Amino acid sequence: MRITSPDNRRVRRAVSLNARKHRDASGLYLVEGPNLIREALQENVALRTLFFLSEEELPDARILELQSLKALAETGEHPPEIILLDRICFEKIVRTGTPQGVLAVAEKSVYTEQDYFAQSGGNVLVLDRIQDPGNLGTLLRTAEAAGFSGAMLPKGCGDAYGPKAVRAAAGALFRLPLLFPDTPGNAVRMLRSHGKKIFVAVAGAHTPYYDCALTRDAAVVVGNEGNGVSEEWIRAADCMLSIPMAGRSESLNAALAGGIIMYEAFRQKLVRTHS
Amino acid sequence: MRITSPDNRRVRRAVSLNARKHRDASGLYLVEGPNLIREALQENVALRTLFFLSEEELPDARILELQSLKALAETGEHPPEIILLDRICFEKIVRTGTPQGVLAVAEKSVYTEQDYFAQSGGNVLVLDRIQDPGNLGTLLRTAEAAGFSGAMLPKGCGDAYGPKAVRAAAGALFRLPLLFPDTPGNAVRMLRSHGKKIFVAVAGAHTPYYDCALTRDAAVVVGNEGNGVSEEWIRAADCMLSIPMAGRSESLNAALAGGIIMYEAFRQKLVRTHS
Repeated sequence: MRITSPDNRRVRRAVSLNARKHRDASGLYLVEGPNLIREALQENVALRTLFFLSEEELPDARILELQSLKALAETGEHPPEIILLDRICFEKIVRTGTPQGVLAVAEKSVYTEQDYFAQSGGNVLVLDRIQDPGNLGTLLRTAEAAGFSGAMLPKGCGDAYGPKAVRAAAGALFRLPLLFPDTPGNAVRMLRSHGKKIFVAVAGAHTPYYDCALTRDAAVVVGNEGNGVSEEWIRAADCMLSIPMAGRSESLNAALAGGIIMYEAFRQKLVRTHS
Repeated sequence: MRITSPDNRRVRRAVSLNARKHRDASGLYLVEGPNLIREALQENVALRTLFFLSEEELPDARILELQSLKALAETGEHPPEIILLDRICFEKIVRTGTPQGVLAVAEKSVYTEQDYFAQSGGNVLVLDRIQDPGNLGTLLRTAEAAGFSGAMLPKGCGDAYGPKAVRAAAGALFRLPLLFPDTPGNAVRMLRSHGKKIFVAVAGAHTPYYDCALTRDAAVVVGNEGNGVSEEWIRAADCMLSIPMAGRSESLNAALAGGIIMYEAFRQKLVRTHS
């Protein structure tokens, strides 16, 4: 199928997925560019639609790449609908960056509490009102790399499925189990009932992060960019930890702070395994 | 002085500082918002001009904050010129974010090789063609927090003085010594002649980063977002190190990778000091 009018119903639906409320309502989100889409297909993420920029608008090398992507998509169990778009339609959907001639409408993966906590002893990341989409995506990407078994995004957090967060997550979104508790209180209840210990990073806490035992069942809470961790999580903490800082620096970027703690957890696990 | 025309010479000069070539040519850059500007004043960064949005455009609370900033600026040894701008002029200069009614034209701090290496035993960060301004700023912010004595940005690196990088650096730019070698070869020569050992992060390297001794005289090289570290730095490396990754993740965000290694260096130093 080829669409030439930006007022087409399918184009308008895809455009709407740039807004969180439409992503929330539909359970769908946009994935941009051949690399991420290839990764999504390899991870069996359900893709509803693949939109290709019409070939006459593309250089030859790109056309070959997109044809191989299309072939890969068609071999799946539930192949996505494939639609060709004129440039005017394509650019109406894509708001940021350069999606290199292809974008997909994907279904969010849904995890139950049981699935999410299935990995016994796993560490989990908790994002307390993280707002910046680059930080959100980077934190999920780092959580996967550090061997965390999932991330929790209680209400109040930015949307991990926004286009910038999807790009920053670099594929982690297709693999890392995510849970979206409706209140921090519910998140705490779930963590406790699955034996997780809650670690909260707070400036000035007595214990440096590397003195905490983080090899298993740690829930690492990272707070909002401007305001840090909320009172609710501080009250729920089993352990408050600090990240020492030299010089006159007052704080770290939220993604960095989270990454440093998660990688310390991973380091402890690797050092223990090899010794 | 009050300026009402966006074609005013001073406004046009400030606008030009959004482009790297004009920052390079003038040695000046823009600092936005009361918090960063207050920090710049406290660190004795030379400010040429302070542009305030005219008061009738601002809420009362903001006016008080800006008045105290103005008073602080006027107590310095070389007080900046203070200029009131109509909204149309102000918004012509500021391209990103919300500068909250004030912006400054600042002079870059210039370090000689000697100043830069003055701190005996200091660790330094080397940015090999890092492009993303958020990553650039975050890496400098983290280098300061991890007690590094400076950063090197050889030619080919993005501009640490661009507005987004300045914001992401969160004040580190006012304190962390920076050096801008004209070639990677010159950077290597300087590092060697000051006794630094060059550590390069490469996927698949045999030694995990936490098995390297990083407490002093380490030069940590972080590579380009898409392509990693260049051949030139790999050849110059005294030690190649890897950051282990779990799951099917293929890489980390460049700022995270750099931050993890720098904080491991800081952790080793703190643990040694306290044991």
